[in-house]
Amino acid sequence: MVIYHLTGADEADIRAKVKGICLEQTVELPEELLPADDIRAEVVGRLERLQQIYTNTFEAAISYAVETTGFELPQLLNVMFGNTSMQSNIRVVRLELPERLRQSFKGPRFGQAGLRALTQAYGRPLLCTALKPMGLPTKNLADLTSQFALGGIDLIKDDHGLANQPFHPFHERVRRCAEAVNEANQKTGYHCLYVPNITAPAQQIVERAYFAKEAGAGGVMIVPGLVGLDWLRVLAEDDKFGLPILSHPAYWGTYVTSLQQGVAHRLTYGLLPRLAGADATIFVNYGGRFSFTQDDCQGIVAGTNQPMGHLKSIFPIPAGGMTLDRLAEMVQFYGLDVIFLMAGGLYGYGPDLRASCQQFRERVSSFFMEDSQ
Amino acid sequence: MVIYHLTGADEADIRAKVKGICLEQTVELPEELLPADDIRAEVVGRLERLQQIYTNTFEAAISYAVETTGFELPQLLNVMFGNTSMQSNIRVVRLELPERLRQSFKGPRFGQAGLRALTQAYGRPLLCTALKPMGLPTKNLADLTSQFALGGIDLIKDDHGLANQPFHPFHERVRRCAEAVNEANQKTGYHCLYVPNITAPAQQIVERAYFAKEAGAGGVMIVPGLVGLDWLRVLAEDDKFGLPILSHPAYWGTYVTSLQQGVAHRLTYGLLPRLAGADATIFVNYGGRFSFTQDDCQGIVAGTNQPMGHLKSIFPIPAGGMTLDRLAEMVQFYGLDVIFLMAGGLYGYGPDLRASCQQFRERVSSFFMEDSQ
Repeated sequence: MVIYHLTGADEADIRAKVKGICLEQTVELPEELLPADDIRAEVVGRLERLQQIYTNTFEAAISYAVETTGFELPQLLNVMFGNTSMQSNIRVVRLELPERLRQSFKGPRFGQAGLRALTQAYGRPLLCTALKPMGLPTKNLADLTSQFALGGIDLIKDDHGLANQPFHPFHERVRRCAEAVNEANQKTGYHCLYVPNITAPAQQIVERAYFAKEAGAGGVMIVPGLVGLDWLRVLAEDDKFGLPILSHPAYWGTYVTSLQQGVAHRLTYGLLPRLAGADATIFVNYGGRFSFTQDDCQGIVAGTNQPMGHLKSIFPIPAGGMTLDRLAEMVQFYGLDVIFLMAGGLYGYGPDLRASCQQFRERVSSFFMEDSQ
Repeated sequence: MVIYHLTGADEADIRAKVKGICLEQTVELPEELLPADDIRAEVVGRLERLQQIYTNTFEAAISYAVETTGFELPQLLNVMFGNTSMQSNIRVVRLELPERLRQSFKGPRFGQAGLRALTQAYGRPLLCTALKPMGLPTKNLADLTSQFALGGIDLIKDDHGLANQPFHPFHERVRRCAEAVNEANQKTGYHCLYVPNITAPAQQIVERAYFAKEAGAGGVMIVPGLVGLDWLRVLAEDDKFGLPILSHPAYWGTYVTSLQQGVAHRLTYGLLPRLAGADATIFVNYGGRFSFTQDDCQGIVAGTNQPMGHLKSIFPIPAGGMTLDRLAEMVQFYGLDVIFLMAGGLYGYGPDLRASCQQFRERVSSFFMEDSQ
């Protein structure tokens, strides 16, 4: 079942649009041209509910036969919103998957509990940072990695702009940064993971994932908006690969920036990456340099942990403009089960990066030690 | 060079946003935190031009060093609009690729001239239709294919909703429809191509493409919005595969529906599929059941045929709500170098589908015969 919001004043017009969605997302023919009654009954989307929820906004719940998806992820997206994405003033706000369809997807391999076990981070939010800037030589990126890991960060990811550029070619970068993290772990006894960005041309994604694993990386990051959501599934379902996966929000922002169109935050950055198999999903935090609101972020969190049968809950990773000064507020807002991603806020905090990381870790932990007293 | 439109009233605010884009799309750090001057000079995007073009709309041209793209297609999209897609009121309207970057992409294998040669269709627009509806048994789809091919259609594509559903599993459908087209071609002497939809889970796309080729299909269709733009490139560059590729617009509609955000029609449905290697690009026609305007469609056409070095011009394929009655107007608007896609308009025209196709072909041809008198 897909829940859409339609913007418009006239109920008759909205009803016509809703009927249009039922046809457009399946048979793509006017009803009178359907060649058989069973197609009308079993293939065309069915309006289950239509109600006005605010002035000029109607909510329509349309159910589609699970067979229309062929039990394949790209076609599931297609049934949900394929051609209707080209209509104005229609937004997908929720997706309810019947158990039979859910069973077609293994979902996240690790999820929240698995990532806590890998990093041995219990009783507090996890800490993440990003290697940057693009253009910095590999050696310097590896030095940064070392500082972050020694300072007690749990996950060190590549900036999503680090691809395979001449400044820091993928294979060399991954080898050196993984090495730096693993050396630091030996000193600290921590379990920090290096998470390189493996977003790449289609036929190199799996190669880069395996290279990363063999080089000692602890996870990988993919930008589904650039290469397709299904790659998360491919790697999450691959037992031989078996590393955690972070999903990055780039290029998909347009789905969420207009509230009258697109696919809601909850789905685009919560439920869909989770269904595909991401163990954590990065998005831009409210109050930073982007325009997401508290409601938007709450929607994403709901998508990461709403009950969905066997599909594990995953971590939300708010990011973008975070600073140590905002931690109290963010702990209040996100609670315990979150990964805080701070990058610029650490780079800018002071000359001793390792000390800044330690502060980050201590401050976050302090909120939860107080809680338990 | 990427040209953005920014919506807003206050020039100082716009200037700050533009500076933000230059950093966000590359280094993702505030300028004062950049560790080296050469990164500021060589990696950060550079504002080349900023001007107010209408009330509340500014146009900014930002150039990025070609190295930032790593000469890979997903990273090119990322530099163009990755994180900035999460900002409101910024739209990508044009993309100008320096020759060195263009040389990284082979582009379309066939393009307009190649598709005309394959179908032997000269001096008139090409004719395309779609097999539908979803849910129709394979045998009936094959019968339809036969009628279309006998009636003189040049390209018969799967509806993009035909994936690998139990109603019409991919392999059986492709085998039977390809067979039907090739039998019809033997009778007519025409060169009709059957173009199945190979949009699929990531690791099955190439398998389905090759299966289609071996079964006798004349091309393939991919929905880049569902599986990633780079798959067009993978298949277009594969000499052993060597069939033409159609790009379908589903799921990417959100990039174009708001004029203040996203990525312009010209790029999303014109230049980007062409750069990746599509030989023709389907989009929704103005005046049909979707909300595209004449300007939007003209933008797409411009993206298919603007001069781009070695990158061949490709066919625009306007679709959605076309009827025989609109042909005169569409010939006027699109001219000779276009593929007209009519599906519902043929299914609904009369009981004899083959005769309807013949009419379609005769009417389209008649405009051009008159022209040459």
